[in-house]
Amino acid sequence: MEKNRIHIFDTTLRDGEQVPGCKLNTKDKVKIAKKLEYLGVDVIEAGFPISSPGDYQSVQKICKSVSNTIICALSRAVEKDIEIAGLALKYAKFPRIHTGIGTSYYHIRYKFNSTPEKIIERAIYAVKHAKKYVEDVEFYAEDAGRTENEFLAKICENVIKYGATVINVPDTTGYCLPEEYGYKIRFLKENVKGIHKIILSTHCHNDLGLATANSLAGITNGAKQVECTINGIGERAGNTSLEEIVMIIKQKPHLNLFTKINTKLISSASHLVSKCTGMKVQFNKAIVGINAFSHSSGIHQDGIIKKRETYESINPKDIGIDQSSIILTARSGRAALDYRYKKLGFFLKKNFLDLVYSIFIKYADENKEITDMELKAILEKANLNSNEINNNKILNKNHNTKNNRIINVL
Amino acid sequence: MEKNRIHIFDTTLRDGEQVPGCKLNTKDKVKIAKKLEYLGVDVIEAGFPISSPGDYQSVQKICKSVSNTIICALSRAVEKDIEIAGLALKYAKFPRIHTGIGTSYYHIRYKFNSTPEKIIERAIYAVKHAKKYVEDVEFYAEDAGRTENEFLAKICENVIKYGATVINVPDTTGYCLPEEYGYKIRFLKENVKGIHKIILSTHCHNDLGLATANSLAGITNGAKQVECTINGIGERAGNTSLEEIVMIIKQKPHLNLFTKINTKLISSASHLVSKCTGMKVQFNKAIVGINAFSHSSGIHQDGIIKKRETYESINPKDIGIDQSSIILTARSGRAALDYRYKKLGFFLKKNFLDLVYSIFIKYADENKEITDMELKAILEKANLNSNEINNNKILNKNHNTKNNRIINVL
Repeated sequence: MEKNRIHIFDTTLRDGEQVPGCKLNTKDKVKIAKKLEYLGVDVIEAGFPISSPGDYQSVQKICKSVSNTIICALSRAVEKDIEIAGLALKYAKFPRIHTGIGTSYYHIRYKFNSTPEKIIERAIYAVKHAKKYVEDVEFYAEDAGRTENEFLAKICENVIKYGATVINVPDTTGYCLPEEYGYKIRFLKENVKGIHKIILSTHCHNDLGLATANSLAGITNGAKQVECTINGIGERAGNTSLEEIVMIIKQKPHLNLFTKINTKLISSASHLVSKCTGMKVQFNKAIVGINAFSHSSGIHQDGIIKKRETYESINPKDIGIDQSSIILTARSGRAALDYRYKKLGFFLKKNFLDLVYSIFIKYADENKEITDMELKAILEKANLNSNEINNNKILNKNHNTKNNRIINVL
Repeated sequence: MEKNRIHIFDTTLRDGEQVPGCKLNTKDKVKIAKKLEYLGVDVIEAGFPISSPGDYQSVQKICKSVSNTIICALSRAVEKDIEIAGLALKYAKFPRIHTGIGTSYYHIRYKFNSTPEKIIERAIYAVKHAKKYVEDVEFYAEDAGRTENEFLAKICENVIKYGATVINVPDTTGYCLPEEYGYKIRFLKENVKGIHKIILSTHCHNDLGLATANSLAGITNGAKQVECTINGIGERAGNTSLEEIVMIIKQKPHLNLFTKINTKLISSASHLVSKCTGMKVQFNKAIVGINAFSHSSGIHQDGIIKKRETYESINPKDIGIDQSSIILTARSGRAALDYRYKKLGFFLKKNFLDLVYSIFIKYADENKEITDMELKAILEKANLNSNEINNNKILNKNHNTKNNRIINVL
């Protein structure tokens, strides 16, 4: 069973944090780290300690506050970086240093003005140096997405020899298609001596909207760790969204994979990260957007009212949301209108509902989302328009008002 | 060559519009439709005319305002819907009716309380009826993502017989993995009599974050049309993002596919839709998010300054953005600081840059993004801290101020 487990490596506090617009102080970071621990992530990448005194301090505080999760710190393949990362991790129960170097032609030629041979030497040196501070050393081959597979295999083989425990294969620029990324992982599984001793990790960026699909291709081809962030925040177009990859694994038993994540905490973790970072989640964000379980078109509402599964393949309860919401707009139909009136305690007969609907739809064309207050006003107008106002038409039960509020707020 | 063309069917004004939070009036819709025409989409799904008088009017006005693009109107497999769609399209130069019915077990059993045989009858009836109004009839097999492939093939074969010109295979609930969706399209290509006569279309939802990957799997397995929206708006977690699928096709020549989209208008189309609908795009949205071409971490900035391609595989110019932006935060390094000072006209010597950097990094830890004004204040402080203030250290050229502004605003 354990061989089918996918480790969730959360980098919200490192790759997610290092973007324009993100505002996190040490207190926020500790709060998020604790939430991640409850959520059940396997690794928290807490920061990049050499980058600033504030970040160093944050990593140190997180080490003191979290005890059940591996705490990881980033470094370049530079002695000083690794030393500072090692120091920052001093109080971690399960420390990991994440070190590495660019391996693509672009990085070797233009960033380092170096040669492949020298890059391998620096990679080995970094891993050996990190091993002086911690046992658990993850190596990243930056821009692996654009690195030739043969060279990537060679560098992997070398760092395994010197004690790397995890190898991260980042598609740094979000370049790969799922087939290409999946093939890369399979190639390493099949061609690197000693690969069975270590965990292969995916780290995908969303520049083409494919981060989640690429991570999925990675784990179906042998990777056992996914690097991801809450709400998919991160460099440029962000990283793989934790909530997406975790829910795919949960929703698709035929993949025969599992994670340790308590999915019922996903919604609240998303809210916390959005609030603390100031990085708003768009309405239509998968899993955690405010519209992810909302319905306003008539066709969909009719289906949802009859049976939730007609228009939702994910149960909102699984991510900690009580129920789907039915929102009334000019795209809504009679079924939804009737449903919402019932929730308000009004049971309308068919002919009268038709009259109410005709008033509603004109009003909704101009006013977009219709509230309970407006629904009541529409009902009054329909009553005035109708010549027969009697109790056979409207049966006001005045019950169930608590539930109404839930429906409207969600 | 034409056989490798992928048709872009934009449904921003229908699937995108029918969601909670979206505010569009007829004037906005016409403005967006015209932008879509300039952008080069092949089909504009303009609305669902039966749903409300306002939507009917919008479809009609769009037909009068757009002349180079197919205008499509949605309907259920219901006589009145189709009739109203036909009327609304009266002034379109290239009209298309989009009609269809749910084909999955969930839809047949729970939404229609019907049988597969009766659903096929209704599908045929709908297509025949639509043919009375227009030649170009697209049929949708709603919830095709969860429909058994054999039954889906059967219904496709039937509607082709009665004149459907396009068949849409919607993954209505965002249920499929790319492999499953790709297989479904291939299955139809290989098993449906007459399939070569029509265009197969993808319509994917993003509930698991896989809409773009599924559309890609569709077109690499024989689909020739992609239904999508600007910014990926749409029911629940939204649709495939037009900008993502179009840029994948552009970035990957080995796919041997092309679209007619003028990608340089993508950024402005995204802004227009976001502004008119009120549906904000998150910072880290692929291609069109404000951070998609922004860099604030030191490692990335250093690379970008040396050569843009080290950390960007997409050229921002291709989507109509002038240049990438370098934003200074506590994750930034000396290279970016030096770069930004040079843009301001200050050329700092190495030792002095080290001093300035040490002041900058403390300040950035507390103040997040650092502006030009703050950079100048930091420089003054460094000057005071230093005992040797002379022109060898700082050479203020006072040039290039126009460019500075561009860098900061982007």
